[in-house]
Amino acid sequence: MHTTEHKQLSTLIEEGLSALNLPDTPGLLYDPVRYTLDLPGKRVRPFLTLTGCGIAGGEPQEALSAAIALELLHNFTLLHDDIMDAAETRRGEDSVYKKWDANTAILAGDAMYAKAFKQLQYYGRNRNYSKEQYAQIIDIFLDSAESVCEGQAYDLDFEDRIKVSLDEYLHMIEGKTAALISGSLAIGGAVAGAKEKILQQLYDIGQTMGIAFQIQDDLLDVIADPEKFGKQRGGDIMEGKKTYLSLLALQRCNDKQAKILQDILRKKNNSENDVTQVVELYKNLDIINSTRLTIKEYYQQSLNLVGVFESSIYKDQLISFLNRLISREF
Amino acid sequence: MHTTEHKQLSTLIEEGLSALNLPDTPGLLYDPVRYTLDLPGKRVRPFLTLTGCGIAGGEPQEALSAAIALELLHNFTLLHDDIMDAAETRRGEDSVYKKWDANTAILAGDAMYAKAFKQLQYYGRNRNYSKEQYAQIIDIFLDSAESVCEGQAYDLDFEDRIKVSLDEYLHMIEGKTAALISGSLAIGGAVAGAKEKILQQLYDIGQTMGIAFQIQDDLLDVIADPEKFGKQRGGDIMEGKKTYLSLLALQRCNDKQAKILQDILRKKNNSENDVTQVVELYKNLDIINSTRLTIKEYYQQSLNLVGVFESSIYKDQLISFLNRLISREF
Repeated sequence: MHTTEHKQLSTLIEEGLSALNLPDTPGLLYDPVRYTLDLPGKRVRPFLTLTGCGIAGGEPQEALSAAIALELLHNFTLLHDDIMDAAETRRGEDSVYKKWDANTAILAGDAMYAKAFKQLQYYGRNRNYSKEQYAQIIDIFLDSAESVCEGQAYDLDFEDRIKVSLDEYLHMIEGKTAALISGSLAIGGAVAGAKEKILQQLYDIGQTMGIAFQIQDDLLDVIADPEKFGKQRGGDIMEGKKTYLSLLALQRCNDKQAKILQDILRKKNNSENDVTQVVELYKNLDIINSTRLTIKEYYQQSLNLVGVFESSIYKDQLISFLNRLISREF
Repeated sequence: MHTTEHKQLSTLIEEGLSALNLPDTPGLLYDPVRYTLDLPGKRVRPFLTLTGCGIAGGEPQEALSAAIALELLHNFTLLHDDIMDAAETRRGEDSVYKKWDANTAILAGDAMYAKAFKQLQYYGRNRNYSKEQYAQIIDIFLDSAESVCEGQAYDLDFEDRIKVSLDEYLHMIEGKTAALISGSLAIGGAVAGAKEKILQQLYDIGQTMGIAFQIQDDLLDVIADPEKFGKQRGGDIMEGKKTYLSLLALQRCNDKQAKILQDILRKKNNSENDVTQVVELYKNLDIINSTRLTIKEYYQQSLNLVGVFESSIYKDQLISFLNRLISREF
C-alpha cells in the first residue's frame, strides 16, 4: 500500500511538472530548464512537501504547487552550483553548464527561480487560503532559498581555507542541503494549516534528515557505483573538496597523514592515484564506518521525530522513505 | 519645490537601503551585496516606484519596501549580467565579477533576489493590504523578474546571430530594460490600490520610458564622457554587441559598409581603431541624429501618457525626471 501511495505522489509530481507548460521562446532560456527537469531526479523535495502536508492533516494534492516550487528552487540551485563547482555531469548526464555554457546556466537558473515563485501564487489566488497562510508559505520558501545561498557561500569559503572544523561543516550543510529539505516538509505543513509547533517538528525532521542525506552524499562519492550515482567516483577528492569524511580524517590522522591529506585537499585537479591514496587513508582511520554510524544516528533522530505524529498513510510513507534513504547506494 | 521633493524621495530610498541591515556573515555572500548597493547608483527604479504610488493617489512612503525590492532585483540582474558580458566596471568601479570572481557574483546575485522578495513581505504582514493587493504586488514583481530574464536570453541569443532586426531588438529591450521600469511604476500603483486601468497606464509609461532609456544607453556608449558614464567609450562596439545604433546602421549601409560592420560585430575583442571606424560609419549614415530622434519620440510618448494623470507633486516630479533623463549625458 505504501508503495502504491508513493507511486501516486510521484505521479502527481510528474504531472505537476508537465503542467508547467514552459514557453518555447526564448529557447536559450527555457530549453535548459526543460532539459534539467526531464533528467531523472529523485524528486525528494516535492515528495516531502506532499508528505509534510499529509502528516499535518492536509490533502497532499493541495500542496502540489508548493512541491513544484521547491523542486524548481532546488534545480535552480543545482544549475548555479554546477557552474561554481565546474561540475560536468548531473544525474548521469551533462550538466547545463557543460551542455550549454556558464552564461546559459546562470540565466536558466534565474528563470527557474521566478517560475518557482510563480507556483506559490496558487495560494495567493485561492480563497481557501488566508492571507496569513499565504504569507507564511512565502516566508518558509524565502528562508529556505536564503539559507541555501548562505550554505553555498560557506562552502565556497571553505575551499580557500586550510582549517575547517566539523562543526563549521555541519553548519554549512544545514544551510546548503538541510534547509531545502526542512523547508519542503514545513511548507507542506503550512499548506495544511498546521500550527507553529507542528511546523517546527516538520522543520526538525528535515534538518536531521538533510544533514544525514548530505553526509551520505559525501560517503557515496567514495563508495558508490559511479554509473548509478551519476557522478565520478572520488570526484570530491579530485576537486579537493572538504567533506564530512575528509574533515573527520583530518581530526583523526597523525601529522604525517595530515600533511599528505592537506596537500591533496589544497589541489583542485587531483589524480586517480591521489583518490586511491585518500581512500586508503579513510580505511586506515576507520572513516567509512564512523561516517555510516553518524548518518544512521541522524536518520534515527529523524525517525524518532516522525514517531510523534499520529498514524497515517503519510507517516508510514515518510518512514519508509527514510528507510530507503538510509540504504540508498546512489 | 520639485527638487526638494525629489531629494526627499532619494533620502527615503537611501534610508530604506541602509535599513536592510544585511548580516555580516557569510562575508563572501553579503560583502559583495553591500559593495554593490554602496556604489553610486541612479536609483531610477525605486524612485519610479515611489512616484508611481504618488501619482496613483497613494502615500509614497508606503511603497518604500516595494521600491527597495525593485532596486535589489535590478542589482541582482546587474551582478549576473556583468558576468555574462564579462564587464569589468560598473558605475565607475570594479564590477563584483571583477573585484571578486564569477562564482561570488552568481551567489551574491542569488542572495539579492531572495532579499528583494523578502521586502515584499511587508505587504503580507501589514493588515492595511488585502490578500488580493499583496498577491498583485507579487505578481507584478514576478512578471518583471521573468521578463528581464527573457530579455537577457534574447540578448545573449543575438550575440550568436548574424541577422537581428530592429523589431527583434526592441522586443528584447522591452524585456531586458523596460520591464523593470514599468514594473517599478506599476508596483507603486498597486501599493496605492490603483485600478487595473491606472496600472496599465503606469505600465505603458514605463515601457516607453524604458525603451528610450536603453536606446539612450546604447547612444551614450558612443558619445558619453567615459569618466561620467562609468564605462569605457565604445565598449559595446569592442564587444561586438548589437545595439540600436549598429542595427540601424546595418539597415542603412551599402554592401561594402555592411561587410565592414558585420566583420567587426562578429568579433568580441575589437580595437580602438575598430571603434573609430564604426563611429565614423555612424556619422556618415546619420545614425547619431536618428537615434536621438527615436529616443525623443519614445520619451514624448511617455510624457504624453503621464499627462493624463491628475495634477500632483508626484506627476510634476515624474515629468521633471523624464526631462532630466532626456538630457542625461551619462
